[in-house]
Amino acid sequence: MDFSVLQETLVALLKQRNKRDIRTLLDQMHEADFASVMQHFSVADMLDLLLLLSLPSQGKLFVYLSNQQQADIAELMDRNDLAALFSTMEADKRADLYNQLSEDQRYALLPGLAQAEREDVRRLASYPEKTAGAIMTSSYATLKADWTVKKALKKLRLEAPDKETIYQTYVIDEVRQLLGTVSLKELILCSPTALVKDLMRTEVVSISLSSDQEDVSKVIRKYDLLALPVLDDNQRLVGIVTYDDAMDAAEEEATEDAQKSASVSALDTPMSQIGFWELYRKRVGWLVLLVFGALLSGAGLAFFEDTIAAQIALVFFMPLLVGSGGNAGSQAAALMVRALATGDVEFKDWAKVLGRDAFVASALGLTMGATVYLLGLLRGGPEIAIVVAISMFFVVVVGSLIGLCLPFILSKLKMDPATASGPLVTTIVDASGVLIYFGFATLLLGMDG
Amino acid sequence: MDFSVLQETLVALLKQRNKRDIRTLLDQMHEADFASVMQHFSVADMLDLLLLLSLPSQGKLFVYLSNQQQADIAELMDRNDLAALFSTMEADKRADLYNQLSEDQRYALLPGLAQAEREDVRRLASYPEKTAGAIMTSSYATLKADWTVKKALKKLRLEAPDKETIYQTYVIDEVRQLLGTVSLKELILCSPTALVKDLMRTEVVSISLSSDQEDVSKVIRKYDLLALPVLDDNQRLVGIVTYDDAMDAAEEEATEDAQKSASVSALDTPMSQIGFWELYRKRVGWLVLLVFGALLSGAGLAFFEDTIAAQIALVFFMPLLVGSGGNAGSQAAALMVRALATGDVEFKDWAKVLGRDAFVASALGLTMGATVYLLGLLRGGPEIAIVVAISMFFVVVVGSLIGLCLPFILSKLKMDPATASGPLVTTIVDASGVLIYFGFATLLLGMDG
Repeated sequence: MDFSVLQETLVALLKQRNKRDIRTLLDQMHEADFASVMQHFSVADMLDLLLLLSLPSQGKLFVYLSNQQQADIAELMDRNDLAALFSTMEADKRADLYNQLSEDQRYALLPGLAQAEREDVRRLASYPEKTAGAIMTSSYATLKADWTVKKALKKLRLEAPDKETIYQTYVIDEVRQLLGTVSLKELILCSPTALVKDLMRTEVVSISLSSDQEDVSKVIRKYDLLALPVLDDNQRLVGIVTYDDAMDAAEEEATEDAQKSASVSALDTPMSQIGFWELYRKRVGWLVLLVFGALLSGAGLAFFEDTIAAQIALVFFMPLLVGSGGNAGSQAAALMVRALATGDVEFKDWAKVLGRDAFVASALGLTMGATVYLLGLLRGGPEIAIVVAISMFFVVVVGSLIGLCLPFILSKLKMDPATASGPLVTTIVDASGVLIYFGFATLLLGMDG
Repeated sequence: MDFSVLQETLVALLKQRNKRDIRTLLDQMHEADFASVMQHFSVADMLDLLLLLSLPSQGKLFVYLSNQQQADIAELMDRNDLAALFSTMEADKRADLYNQLSEDQRYALLPGLAQAEREDVRRLASYPEKTAGAIMTSSYATLKADWTVKKALKKLRLEAPDKETIYQTYVIDEVRQLLGTVSLKELILCSPTALVKDLMRTEVVSISLSSDQEDVSKVIRKYDLLALPVLDDNQRLVGIVTYDDAMDAAEEEATEDAQKSASVSALDTPMSQIGFWELYRKRVGWLVLLVFGALLSGAGLAFFEDTIAAQIALVFFMPLLVGSGGNAGSQAAALMVRALATGDVEFKDWAKVLGRDAFVASALGLTMGATVYLLGLLRGGPEIAIVVAISMFFVVVVGSLIGLCLPFILSKLKMDPATASGPLVTTIVDASGVLIYFGFATLLLGMDG
């Protein structure tokens, strides 16, 4: 599909306020594509366009815009239009939008909603960001254990238009305790007179309201679920997270980890839309902070001033040594951060992992030491070659072990292991590298001289 | 659930070959959990345990083991047992296993399969790794356009046990061209006499056989699909990728990117199970390669030997300057790699992004320059402070721009942008940093002296 042609068509239709053709165009496209085209419009144009569509279309289309765009449009919207749009949106998306609104907008909006909706929005919007509660929806289908399959199917048929999914349903008792789950597939394969309780799966996988969204997507992925039921502290069913929202959460978490792993504070806005100041702010903090780490390396060099002055050739190998240590450390940290994030390795595994990786680090150190011994011979003579080779071995081993341990230490301190980023590791390893290198040099060349 | 208690129970039951209790235990658990417990067994024990289960249970359980474990167990299996297990496995998982088998095992296995299965396995196993073809399944449900809803539902009910999903079905013509899609929800909401062609969605999202698995999960996520149809070059439907396999693919890609972004070649085995040599091999290549990059920095330093000898205090600031440049470069590279990987930024956006980020880089450079000016004053006097501050500005700006451009350049060269890793960027930026710093020092201090 050629989006630029579509965009021109849409601009022209919007100018003419040609409601009929715009609606036909939307019918022929997936809402996600229509939203992609719309994204390039001004907020005012997006609003005009939305209001030319039917209300259900508005609701379907709106959720494909970014959170920022949704909030900007809502800002301009008449309160009645906004209340109407709110009522057509999915429960979880609606709560997300509510959280983006200003206090004034919220007060203007709430009276326009039916009471049940108002309570639902307020409740869903009240859970802390990035928890199961924040990404769950309240529109799921429930059954009773003593119903027949026939009755269950009839209820699902009635409720289908309003529920986020009817493919997975939840069997609850009077106090909303979760007794089991049944899939629609199981229901339609059974005799209409069978009872729900006889075909439900009772070993139900569930998660608590306050769980991290990262864990939600891990569980959904591990058990290949369509949706994961969310329970409150009293084990009552309060919502479900569907696989598509879990996919978005996993993507968001992976992006956040990628950003943290380069010492950037997690961005709230996609890179394509982020503004100058936000990007500056998210980057400058760590850069300045790491300056103080780098000062340690400088202080180390100052300490060895005499050695350096006596053998200036030592300086030429410094970038090689500290760089390699930093690289080995970054490798180890990235591998460990990712393994912890996906749940492949857990905190309790640290001793086992450390044992194996110490061998790997030593082997890497030997290889690197041998490589630079030759370089040292060629460029600085046998004495320097020995110093450089021994230093390289230790720098690579120490760097690897620092990179490996840092994520575990951070996770023990209840911090995100992803903060054990390349730049942080590099800065720490740089300082150790300077000490190791010039320490050995002073020791070995000092003895010689 | 306490897995260590479960594991002991299972070990005891296996020792007694207590088939009945093992089966009961499996009934009370999710297969994924049972597989987690089993993973700690030896391969021989895993095989013994599997063979005590019913054939359908074997198939369901087997797919939750890692690819390596599946292959190891298959290696020990009698060919008839393996053929039986093969027949109960899902089509896509079966093909993955086939790809892991040795040539001998394949020859032994194929005669034991029914002809249709044999062809299906061979076909699915033939697509290149990490493409849509490799992760798709051939067991999807199709309908004809002129069928009634009643007939469609009847067919789905019959086929449900064998299909990976019946919630999304595909309407095809005689030559398997994809005409539209219908969800089970739409079918059960419609009158039984309605025709499939009147309710199917005709603006179908699909993907081609050779598409990258990364694109498959992007599309599924963008359009919130349960499954994505895969078409061959003649636009015929040949398979579908379900959301759960797309989630696994997305996770795999994010892990691979995280590894590449630390200059580790993508691992084929999870960190928890990887062996010494594989980990060594995947790390050593880049480490040694980057040595040659670091030599550039060394050569730069050698070139400025006279300046360094005259003003040894300059060396103390070197880690600070080249380190900060490397950090800024790593930040920029990581942000861009991730934005390209998620599709948030595309290649054509490079000019726009570069323009905005040049401003951000300049602002960061100014901040960092001002910070180190003070440090320079304190530790080296006004002349050195000026040199250090000006160098810092340029090192940070150049570092950021290198980090920003490298992913675009690699993507233009048809290489994975994720290779624009922290260590690679750091190594390049280090060399530029040395040249900038000592270049300015020679110029400014030389003029002074």
